[in-house]
Amino acid sequence: MNSTVSLADKLGRIDDHWSPRIVAQLNDQHVKVVKLLGEFVWHEHADTDELFLVVHGTLHIDLPDERRTLRTGELFVVPRGVRHRPVAEQECQVVLIEAAGTVNTGDRSDSELTNPAEWL
Amino acid sequence: MNSTVSLADKLGRIDDHWSPRIVAQLNDQHVKVVKLLGEFVWHEHADTDELFLVVHGTLHIDLPDERRTLRTGELFVVPRGVRHRPVAEQECQVVLIEAAGTVNTGDRSDSELTNPAEWL
Repeated sequence: MNSTVSLADKLGRIDDHWSPRIVAQLNDQHVKVVKLLGEFVWHEHADTDELFLVVHGTLHIDLPDERRTLRTGELFVVPRGVRHRPVAEQECQVVLIEAAGTVNTGDRSDSELTNPAEWL
Repeated sequence: MNSTVSLADKLGRIDDHWSPRIVAQLNDQHVKVVKLLGEFVWHEHADTDELFLVVHGTLHIDLPDERRTLRTGELFVVPRGVRHRPVAEQECQVVLIEAAGTVNTGDRSDSELTNPAEWL
């Protein structure tokens, strides 16, 4: 049977940034937790929508024509194929949900920020 | 473009129990919010896993051989085909994620608690 997952516990075990860890699977989607700080690379995911839920802090998501700003308890779904760039001026803690197998940098898998997600 | 969703705002607009509202779609999954109080009906979903994330309060999920207790910030995925019964001794606020089109009472669609989910 699946584990009960404490988001705070999982996030407390992460001491780096931009490296999502898988904490649950729901149908063919992975639920991940990640700490973000600074500017990520502009990228897109051709084959999956990507949900961002902020559990602590403030996250900007730059989109082609606008910036969305998410605070604790707010979520936003970046549609597949839409270029975006997460930006965190201070460290923030985020839940990501996206198709299993998604690489964090999408079409920019040449980035030094590319990290395959592992289970935590 | 999708809306930015505040969970607190959406939950603040709900004044009933056991009636999930859809607040976002991620690939073929619906993200819902719901307030729970009391004992739900035992049921199962043959075709979808179901994620419960407690955003406020305490939720018990009775399973065939055990009871899981989730507190604020904890999540659990009930696998498809597993009978379960949510129980909330006091009102709790929950995010549900499951396949689009899922009915809350699963195979017990004859229940008086059956509620088709609508967008909020």
